[in-house]
Amino acid sequence: MRLSRYFLPTLKETPREAEIVSHRLMLRAGMIRQEAAGIYSWLPLGKRVLDKICTIIREEQDRSGAIEVLMPTLQPADLWIESGRYDAYGQEMLRITDRHDRPMLYGPTNEEMITAIFKSGVRSYKDLPLNLYHIQWKVRDEVRPRFGTMRSREFLMKDAYSFDLDAEAARRAYYRMFVAYLRTFSRMGLTSVPMKADTGPIGGDLSHEFIILADTGESEVFCDKAMLDLPIPSEDTDFSGDLADLVAPFTAPYAATDEMHDQAAFETAVPEERRVSARGIEVGHIFYFGTKYSAPMGAVVTGPDGKDVPVEMGSYGIGPSRLVPAIIEASHDDDGIIWPASVAPFDVGIINMRSGDEACNSACTSLEAQLQARGLDVLYDDTDARGGAKFAQMDLIGLPKQIIVGPKGLKNGEVEVKDRKTGERSLMSPDAAVNALAASQ
Amino acid sequence: MRLSRYFLPTLKETPREAEIVSHRLMLRAGMIRQEAAGIYSWLPLGKRVLDKICTIIREEQDRSGAIEVLMPTLQPADLWIESGRYDAYGQEMLRITDRHDRPMLYGPTNEEMITAIFKSGVRSYKDLPLNLYHIQWKVRDEVRPRFGTMRSREFLMKDAYSFDLDAEAARRAYYRMFVAYLRTFSRMGLTSVPMKADTGPIGGDLSHEFIILADTGESEVFCDKAMLDLPIPSEDTDFSGDLADLVAPFTAPYAATDEMHDQAAFETAVPEERRVSARGIEVGHIFYFGTKYSAPMGAVVTGPDGKDVPVEMGSYGIGPSRLVPAIIEASHDDDGIIWPASVAPFDVGIINMRSGDEACNSACTSLEAQLQARGLDVLYDDTDARGGAKFAQMDLIGLPKQIIVGPKGLKNGEVEVKDRKTGERSLMSPDAAVNALAASQ
Repeated sequence: MRLSRYFLPTLKETPREAEIVSHRLMLRAGMIRQEAAGIYSWLPLGKRVLDKICTIIREEQDRSGAIEVLMPTLQPADLWIESGRYDAYGQEMLRITDRHDRPMLYGPTNEEMITAIFKSGVRSYKDLPLNLYHIQWKVRDEVRPRFGTMRSREFLMKDAYSFDLDAEAARRAYYRMFVAYLRTFSRMGLTSVPMKADTGPIGGDLSHEFIILADTGESEVFCDKAMLDLPIPSEDTDFSGDLADLVAPFTAPYAATDEMHDQAAFETAVPEERRVSARGIEVGHIFYFGTKYSAPMGAVVTGPDGKDVPVEMGSYGIGPSRLVPAIIEASHDDDGIIWPASVAPFDVGIINMRSGDEACNSACTSLEAQLQARGLDVLYDDTDARGGAKFAQMDLIGLPKQIIVGPKGLKNGEVEVKDRKTGERSLMSPDAAVNALAASQ
Repeated sequence: MRLSRYFLPTLKETPREAEIVSHRLMLRAGMIRQEAAGIYSWLPLGKRVLDKICTIIREEQDRSGAIEVLMPTLQPADLWIESGRYDAYGQEMLRITDRHDRPMLYGPTNEEMITAIFKSGVRSYKDLPLNLYHIQWKVRDEVRPRFGTMRSREFLMKDAYSFDLDAEAARRAYYRMFVAYLRTFSRMGLTSVPMKADTGPIGGDLSHEFIILADTGESEVFCDKAMLDLPIPSEDTDFSGDLADLVAPFTAPYAATDEMHDQAAFETAVPEERRVSARGIEVGHIFYFGTKYSAPMGAVVTGPDGKDVPVEMGSYGIGPSRLVPAIIEASHDDDGIIWPASVAPFDVGIINMRSGDEACNSACTSLEAQLQARGLDVLYDDTDARGGAKFAQMDLIGLPKQIIVGPKGLKNGEVEVKDRKTGERSLMSPDAAVNALAASQ
């Protein structure tokens, strides 16, 4: 992509309304634009990050055996009256009346609708286990939306729903998502800590929040330091087996959000030098809630004994539009964002230090073509801005690697390759730069 | 994908509520489920088709130089009051009041919001041309939603918006989208006919609808038969040039929707034997409307002469959720859907005629693995349903190719390959089947 043809409205000033660093950086890097309180447009750079995050989520959901569907954003109120949550959900539910005065709502979550879908399509235990997920926009009409897309009113959510014949099978389904979540966050460069959590309005018996540690986190969390260094299950994990042994190391050590924290138990369980007390950001939440929805809604399957039983369910959420700022909170410096390679909007930025100079133009377009041919996404700054402004903007948007091409270097047959994270710079030939960057992918 | 682990709730009966064949087939093939009047869930098979359609749209938008963003579904009413459309839009606009009593709406289109985005990010003619598109759910609260996802209330739309300094540059932008649309529909196996159209509530000077011919089409259309056989611009088209010469063959012959039709002009322009009068389905609509939104909203750029001018705009829509039924209307038979290869949910279906039989199981799993290794998407019917039911279901869901594996054939070292469209069946070795199917991609 040529910057001169791109839409990258970066800001030099720090927007006053942004309270946390990720919100400031997303606005400054031209990733998002606020359209109403807690409602954002995703500009081209932000959209690319959001897509990369969704791709990782999808790959790990698919790997675990979940199947993708897409439910609508609007839901009839009837469904929620049936489950008993219509009145209970309160003002966070955005209630809508259509032109025929029918009560509708903008879905804040989909337990009811997926239960209805299941009920209409599955009759027998032979069709289980089943896990259906979708990635769709949702609305929670927060009284005070804040922190940019970290806590927005319209937000993107991956929500998965598992259906099983009995509690034991439901536990296995829960563990599949548990492992899928560990892998998902790890692939985004995040260290996530599963913590026992309150089940809240979803209800149920068993729940974990996946928390990443960041100074700006919304809640206080407590865990055994050992949690931070556990190896993540590999991509060869056999999801058809029981994953209890893979999950156990993540549930054995102490780890709890402030709602569930028990200081005495913490001190008993964890030696002082391993006690971590920090701020955390919730990036995923999984629930096992049994027959909470299936029983009132009559979602039953015929078991092997010919008797109908309400299906055992769980639900599993990840917020991609919240992960974008969460990753930035975990990975930035004073100059801007530092994207982990797997979610970077482009892999490489090329800076032409003298646009218009024939040698510089030619070297840059050749580098661009070669890198693209090697499968890399390239943003080429071909504008006539000053070098200083180009450096600052490229650092701000945080692409993992930069190639700086100037007339002096080219006379020596060299370009400069910069690593955004370490700041390390190396001079090398353009061909060597292409090889080095392709190899680092 | 193994059918035994998939979620494919096909129906044997024809749903009573469905008035047109595509709606019946989408329900019967387990592609969609109605959640409220005109509001649908996309089940796994439908979601795959929708994704393939969106991928083609994206590729052609990107090829033409358009840049992807993502605007929210909810919009503040203010924007529409500013443009003057808030009152004019009538009851089709789904109006919403949030918890703070602020007037919002579920976006039916995005001219206002994209103009605001443009205004906040672009100042100079040097940043033009610019075309921003997104693919997002929209709502039009139709008084009588019908025909399934052909005319639903919540529908997916790709809408692109072009911004240019003057009318001549805007015409070039319009032609880029014109060519992108021809290519998009052609890649989906559709013959689309661009027809001069009324600009309706979007307003403006120039507009084309892209219509595909189908007996169940909603409107009557008239065109020169020559329009149906024109070659489509190639993927090597240079979108940075002026595409007037590529567009001219598509705008010269007579072609008009009933709103724009002039029978006398038709008869003068087209010899009787070439006059086509048929039913059509609108699958795309493009508009050039100049400064209709930029002027009232103050979206100006500074021109080369240093003076501010309101930017010239166009908008360009394709409905992916409507294309799914449109393709089915154009491609089906009495047994079910016949997917064009480019949008098929899976490339190949494998039918195991005797699940449980060791030779059949082994041949099927080997075929599945080999086809997947060659990059094909495979749906393997490994269930214990009867052969007849398997045939009927596989025909219903319309995958382009089927491989039928039975114990008798295997004794002769043969499987049967069936072409869904022609019905042609050929016996061959499993290896030959893999090679033939991989080659046909």
